[in-house]
Amino acid sequence: MNLPDCPTPTQKYDRIVMAHGGGGRMTSRLIEKIFYPAFQNKWLEQAHDGATLNLPSARIAITTDSFVVDPLFFPGGNIGDLAINGTVNDLLCCGATPLYLSAGFILEEGLPIETLKQIVQTMRKAAGKAGVSIVTGDTKVVEHGKCDKIFINTTGVGIVPENIDIGLHRIKKGDAVIVTGDIGNHGICILSTRDSLGFETSIQSDTAALTQIVSNLLAGVPDVHILRDPTRGGLSSTLNEIAEGANVTIAIDENELPISSSVNAACDLLGLDPLYVANEGIMLVFLPDEYAERALQIIRSDIHGKNARIIGHVTEDRHPEVILKLSLGQTRILDMLSGEQLPRIC
Amino acid sequence: MNLPDCPTPTQKYDRIVMAHGGGGRMTSRLIEKIFYPAFQNKWLEQAHDGATLNLPSARIAITTDSFVVDPLFFPGGNIGDLAINGTVNDLLCCGATPLYLSAGFILEEGLPIETLKQIVQTMRKAAGKAGVSIVTGDTKVVEHGKCDKIFINTTGVGIVPENIDIGLHRIKKGDAVIVTGDIGNHGICILSTRDSLGFETSIQSDTAALTQIVSNLLAGVPDVHILRDPTRGGLSSTLNEIAEGANVTIAIDENELPISSSVNAACDLLGLDPLYVANEGIMLVFLPDEYAERALQIIRSDIHGKNARIIGHVTEDRHPEVILKLSLGQTRILDMLSGEQLPRIC
Repeated sequence: MNLPDCPTPTQKYDRIVMAHGGGGRMTSRLIEKIFYPAFQNKWLEQAHDGATLNLPSARIAITTDSFVVDPLFFPGGNIGDLAINGTVNDLLCCGATPLYLSAGFILEEGLPIETLKQIVQTMRKAAGKAGVSIVTGDTKVVEHGKCDKIFINTTGVGIVPENIDIGLHRIKKGDAVIVTGDIGNHGICILSTRDSLGFETSIQSDTAALTQIVSNLLAGVPDVHILRDPTRGGLSSTLNEIAEGANVTIAIDENELPISSSVNAACDLLGLDPLYVANEGIMLVFLPDEYAERALQIIRSDIHGKNARIIGHVTEDRHPEVILKLSLGQTRILDMLSGEQLPRIC
Repeated sequence: MNLPDCPTPTQKYDRIVMAHGGGGRMTSRLIEKIFYPAFQNKWLEQAHDGATLNLPSARIAITTDSFVVDPLFFPGGNIGDLAINGTVNDLLCCGATPLYLSAGFILEEGLPIETLKQIVQTMRKAAGKAGVSIVTGDTKVVEHGKCDKIFINTTGVGIVPENIDIGLHRIKKGDAVIVTGDIGNHGICILSTRDSLGFETSIQSDTAALTQIVSNLLAGVPDVHILRDPTRGGLSSTLNEIAEGANVTIAIDENELPISSSVNAACDLLGLDPLYVANEGIMLVFLPDEYAERALQIIRSDIHGKNARIIGHVTEDRHPEVILKLSLGQTRILDMLSGEQLPRIC
């Protein structure tokens, strides 16, 4: 069927218009020109309202995340790889092998098509690196001023091997606590990129899928109790969630926290505590202390884990509390983030 | 641990504030007070970044949809049941038994907590009716003016029985085309509810999960070739997608189209073609003609299918085209929606 009068999104339009979300010809063309070529795979080619596929196992993990990061582009990444890596890491935290992702786009009328293309290309690359396929998607368009350029939801499905049991119920007194890399990079990077701050650093976001670290770790040590990525709310909030969920006391050692000197300097300047700053490419690992050194070696052998450290231990199997041991021997109780530190960090 | 100074979302705050999306104490409280009580199930209680669960089969369907409907509340439903029913219907269109949903919320700073509660309660009821569980979720908050009150993404996972093969490749010349109910209700309902139109009707949205119709149908006839819900872009756009995807000519009969007199009247008044108006609770069914009457009986036995009709047939297995046979014997070619008819319909 010839449709000479119907412009393609890249032909007549260089910006998103409401009709791109109308479910008609313009929506089809947007999908055909931008999403299919980037994410191409046999499931998308089913061209159905959803993807039908065979999993290698029926024990699965499902996780979802919406991304509203501001700005869209920042040193080290953009909303596209953030959306892939964030959901992949959440699957990894369930002990799952990440396999399939959905992608739901909410676009603001007027968004340059070129911006969308760049983001979609970044998603394609990130998905390739992480070993996942984007098998189904959705696009909505809202009027100018009714969203902020682009929001992306990714929902992930992975399979969980039968021998894996990761969860709060596994945590025990004596467990070692490892963090796989420097803290605070993502949050400070986003802050420093925001126009209004007039503050610049060389700090890059740590956004990365930790697929290799986790798969090496699960293969290399006999037992892992919990994996968590300390994103919004930072290390302190995630440790508090774990302490409360598992009803344990966690003590961490200030001297052992891996923080780069530039993050430290930026935090000093801005009056921020790096323990509450968001991360995107690190993970907390709890496991029996006897496996901690072996785990540390495994994690450090990966590019994203080279600054990994054992930062503390589970000291009590009661009193849900997180204690920070300070350099001079005193202690401080670390609470969950109680307000908002950095909005729209992911 | 006592936290006397930290207000619960319903205590000090009656509106969403940025800190509700910060990943700290306020986010936790929002989840504990609003989402967990509504959606309670053992998977959410895992309190992890994702849900781990055992599927009854490893042959699955995945589908995703973001909902940005404006207004949030309308006769017959709100964004909450729309978000559940829409994703459930997409799974049904894959021939899947819908089982698990994720829910991703993007909230605008200032949204009344009471509004969120109402929407979440509606989601709970709709999920219960449709037989699905909301097993994992995510909440983001953006500044006032950066989204429009609330956007919801739902992503669904269902299992596809081994004997089910539904897809464009199944469509054959001679197939009957059934529509399970009146067309145009949802779109006209939304239009008539929008403040600016100053136009009122008694038309309700048809939003509904068609779980029962589809399960009865798949059990009651030996073969179904395709199921599709004609949402955005209306019946014409969906028929065109099918004609193009399957490379067939579809002829439908104007006299057989089920359209209520109030939708007809509203369309006349507004200069709209009901064939391009969005639907939320009907489905197109293609199946061998010999099973069409039996299928019709089965569909009509359900409350949501009582106005079902055989509206046409696949007349050629080439020439992707949709032909409307008019009352007086002429024909008209139905194209896909070529612009935007009704923005933010779902």
